[in-house]
Amino acid sequence: MLIVGERINTSRKVKGEPVVERAVVNRDADYIKDLAVKQFEAGATYIDINAGTLTSGEPEALEWLTKVVMEAVDAPISFDTPNPAALARALKAYDPSKGQPMINSITAESERYSNVLPFVLDYKAKVIALAMDDSGIQQDPAKRLAVAKNLVEKLSDAGVPMDDIYVDPLTFPIGTGSDVAVAMLDIIEKIKAEYPEVHVIAGLSNISHGMPARKLLNQAMTVLAMGRGLDAGILDPNDRYLMALIYATEALLGRDEYCMNYITKSREGAFEGL
Amino acid sequence: MLIVGERINTSRKVKGEPVVERAVVNRDADYIKDLAVKQFEAGATYIDINAGTLTSGEPEALEWLTKVVMEAVDAPISFDTPNPAALARALKAYDPSKGQPMINSITAESERYSNVLPFVLDYKAKVIALAMDDSGIQQDPAKRLAVAKNLVEKLSDAGVPMDDIYVDPLTFPIGTGSDVAVAMLDIIEKIKAEYPEVHVIAGLSNISHGMPARKLLNQAMTVLAMGRGLDAGILDPNDRYLMALIYATEALLGRDEYCMNYITKSREGAFEGL
Repeated sequence: MLIVGERINTSRKVKGEPVVERAVVNRDADYIKDLAVKQFEAGATYIDINAGTLTSGEPEALEWLTKVVMEAVDAPISFDTPNPAALARALKAYDPSKGQPMINSITAESERYSNVLPFVLDYKAKVIALAMDDSGIQQDPAKRLAVAKNLVEKLSDAGVPMDDIYVDPLTFPIGTGSDVAVAMLDIIEKIKAEYPEVHVIAGLSNISHGMPARKLLNQAMTVLAMGRGLDAGILDPNDRYLMALIYATEALLGRDEYCMNYITKSREGAFEGL
Repeated sequence: MLIVGERINTSRKVKGEPVVERAVVNRDADYIKDLAVKQFEAGATYIDINAGTLTSGEPEALEWLTKVVMEAVDAPISFDTPNPAALARALKAYDPSKGQPMINSITAESERYSNVLPFVLDYKAKVIALAMDDSGIQQDPAKRLAVAKNLVEKLSDAGVPMDDIYVDPLTFPIGTGSDVAVAMLDIIEKIKAEYPEVHVIAGLSNISHGMPARKLLNQAMTVLAMGRGLDAGILDPNDRYLMALIYATEALLGRDEYCMNYITKSREGAFEGL
């Protein structure tokens, strides 16, 4: 499972306080480094950086975040913006010896597609492909699947290797309809069946938007989605229980030969107190 | 999700001590009642009773357990024995106003089948049907599926309503092969596809036999299996985290309209501290 650590995001609040935005505005490198290190140590494969709430100065902020995260950890970065100016500055500052960069995200919307694609190609980046186009976000799962497939074909035709494409089928809150999770699981399975080399990623925490005890719904949805083929997640790797269930699920799904990773994590104390 | 509470079983040990067996041998009704009440309050639909470790006196013990559990809770009982003498005494003592009895379990083994079937028919009981026959337990999932289907057909031909059949596809420990869980999920899905009215049940804790941090594997396997159609489980309802994930999974799978049960459980404090 490829884990994209989501915590360095200026829209994230802790007890209502925009703590990350404040750290970015004040160029508080220690605060950001701590978030990067903690996510990396908890199992994040990629560290996502997002400065999207800054009405001005996003490009400078993303460049700064790139440098700070590179100083903190030996992990590749997921550049979370549709803003070409921000992508240009951040990717230029990025040292590819940290690993293949990821761009979060492209869509089939004409403007965003043409803005973001050149960076994907120039930097040979992995790319998260959101299942939406100029018609907006389709609630009908069949239509959303069609948008996703169309986007995969376009990216592939443009020269992006299938293995670098991470389709995000979009997560609707379960509070908006009892069938949205089942529909999402169905889309995941169909994408993997059609394009076995393509990856499926999701930011699943939206599933529990507006519900009580959100963590449990997020955890159960992660396990269910993995059971249908989800192989990457944008999530909080510092949710220890979620990570433990992910390791358990990988072992069960035969993605962890001889359960070696599960047993190792257990020995290292990753499951203590859970 | 139909929950069969597994804790009143003389083979169960706590810290190596055969506490349930001791309570049964000593006819310690308070101990047994406490187990019944705690499971019922935690969400068990059925209370399973098993006195199978008693080399002699199983029939008397099962009759006694039946009476004690009936005094303790208003829940139906799952009679967990292949012993016709024990089934006879226990079912005779059972008051059907507690709910439809369940028999745990029948197999396609000739002797066991002919021993147990009359009780299923006479008492119009629900029955757990283990996927094994005179050839033993098939490790090959295709063969195990064939055994399960054959048993469903036999029971149905004998007059057992499909809705009363709970197929148990048998759980192999993940330590015996990286593919055993995937195979089991596949069997579950195929049984539900072939017989939509038949239920699928499992005692999933065997999946983690011999592994560290067993609870996490059991929890993840329960969610994965529910995602493929498992609608009943033989489990410990006093594992609060497991029950919470089951409620979350039911909400996600559209088996809990408007998530009303999930929201109610949350309000009642079922998820506190998790």
